Amino acid sequence: MRVAALAGGVGGAKLVDGLAQCLSPDKLTIIVNTGDDFDHLRLRICPDLDTVCYTLAGSANPETGWGRRDESWNVLESVSELGGPSWFRLGDRDLGTHLERTRRLNEGESLSEITSDFCRAWGIEFTVLPMTDDDVSTWVYTEDGEITFQEYFVHRQCQPRVTGFRFENAEHAHPAPGVIESLQNADLVIICPSNPWVSIDPILAIPGVRSCMDSLPVVAVSPIIGGKAVKGPAAKMFAELGIEPSTLSVFHHYGKMLGGFVLDIIDVDQVESIRTHGIQTLVTNTLMKTTGDRQRLAKEVLEFSENLIN
Amino acid sequence: MRVAALAGGVGGAKLVDGLAQCLSPDKLTIIVNTGDDFDHLRLRICPDLDTVCYTLAGSANPETGWGRRDESWNVLESVSELGGPSWFRLGDRDLGTHLERTRRLNEGESLSEITSDFCRAWGIEFTVLPMTDDDVSTWVYTEDGEITFQEYFVHRQCQPRVTGFRFENAEHAHPAPGVIESLQNADLVIICPSNPWVSIDPILAIPGVRSCMDSLPVVAVSPIIGGKAVKGPAAKMFAELGIEPSTLSVFHHYGKMLGGFVLDIIDVDQVESIRTHGIQTLVTNTLMKTTGDRQRLAKEVLEFSENLIN
Repeated sequence: MRVAALAGGVGGAKLVDGLAQCLSPDKLTIIVNTGDDFDHLRLRICPDLDTVCYTLAGSANPETGWGRRDESWNVLESVSELGGPSWFRLGDRDLGTHLERTRRLNEGESLSEITSDFCRAWGIEFTVLPMTDDDVSTWVYTEDGEITFQEYFVHRQCQPRVTGFRFENAEHAHPAPGVIESLQNADLVIICPSNPWVSIDPILAIPGVRSCMDSLPVVAVSPIIGGKAVKGPAAKMFAELGIEPSTLSVFHHYGKMLGGFVLDIIDVDQVESIRTHGIQTLVTNTLMKTTGDRQRLAKEVLEFSENLIN
Repeated sequence: MRVAALAGGVGGAKLVDGLAQCLSPDKLTIIVNTGDDFDHLRLRICPDLDTVCYTLAGSANPETGWGRRDESWNVLESVSELGGPSWFRLGDRDLGTHLERTRRLNEGESLSEITSDFCRAWGIEFTVLPMTDDDVSTWVYTEDGEITFQEYFVHRQCQPRVTGFRFENAEHAHPAPGVIESLQNADLVIICPSNPWVSIDPILAIPGVRSCMDSLPVVAVSPIIGGKAVKGPAAKMFAELGIEPSTLSVFHHYGKMLGGFVLDIIDVDQVESIRTHGIQTLVTNTLMKTTGDRQRLAKEVLEFSENLIN
């Protein structure tokens, strides 16, 4: 079974890591959100790509889920001492990634070429693709005005009330090399438990991605468990947009795109509502606390999905 | 006595540190070579400015003389892991300086403004000025062709045989704000024991600097001791240019500019040759191994220079 997985940050990276433990490198392609990418201190920072890659390489910080393990913070301490911007937490090892990526981007190489080389250097055998090599930026409409995603997420700590989203330049962006091919060759698309609004929707907004998915079984794993997001502002966003934050709302968010839906045992009361739409469901423990959990959930999702393919 | 000191890297920084222990902040201005400044990994790196500032701030690496104490190397390790350029040794704390400086330069601030703010942040009360805010680059003519100073110094480890030097754009450069004023207000100029060819000559090549010095007593401290440079390629450069590497050659290099010359006891045999040119000399122990040595030498140079002023 060839799988294309759509992923954002920490939650998505965990399921991707589980899938990588179940599938051989030629059977799994990961398409990653780059709408959160931004420039800071003249460095190009790609939070979701890095989280996915660090997780697959086993070098992610196990405490935070993002950033790198065995990290030091001396660069930022030095910048801060000089009164420079220190609101974005950049570890020293992590910063090496941004420096080298930015250097190569500046020499005209594409993000997908660079990501491919970085994966090789980090010993990652799976194909990790940015959704696009073009600049697509997620903007958050809030009651305080329109702000970039990182401004909203890190600097403002998700405080401003959200009224909508915009993926700047998405309509003119091209899928990165390999994105369309991996979808065309896939037997299954898995939408990882990432934020639907700001991690998955930007990927779906890239021209060509959604139409490729029309002819494929698509399974989404709910990032909302018991009405709450495991991490991040997904539940808060649903609520502020006037939608009850629930796994059912996640299901409706993706709508007709889905052939299967994976939700947590705690939300078992919502299964019937989903099934009335003719969608198959897997009810299981979706919280991934350990690396063992990642593998177990991935295995269950793959087994569940086999029914959709045949 | 108001002093303007011209300085390059490690040797110059040591005497500057000694002078700072003898003079109050309003009596000492340090004018620093920026000909070695270069861009690396899209960062603006100013080796001599940083060495002088770190030394004055007490944060210089006591082992190497350059870079910072309590340094870590995780960024470079990360860049190197990705196959990026790691030939220039950039410590993590040091890199914070380059990141913040580059960010501010990119916002249109001048190197002298930024340096002034950095000094304040680091608790340096003395005025440290880059020789210019304009781009002036030292190029080294070698038998392998013309290369930038850092290419010669770090990457090629001073191996190529030197045939000359060029300070690109020096003739069009303006002295940084404060440079001419500090020279006009000075009672004495001290040329620190820095490389005459690539640390001091670039400063002297900035229009206006040399003419200001014509009316002032100028004292140079020889960076050549017993025919050898304490650090760096100065002796090798003299030899390759067909000049005997000696304290006498340093004296002749500066020539009529000098009112006084400070040389090491080991070179006492050369004193007579210098005195025949009507120049006053101080023969002392010029090797600065300890911070106590820096203060002692600075004190002796200042006392010696008082005779030249009166």
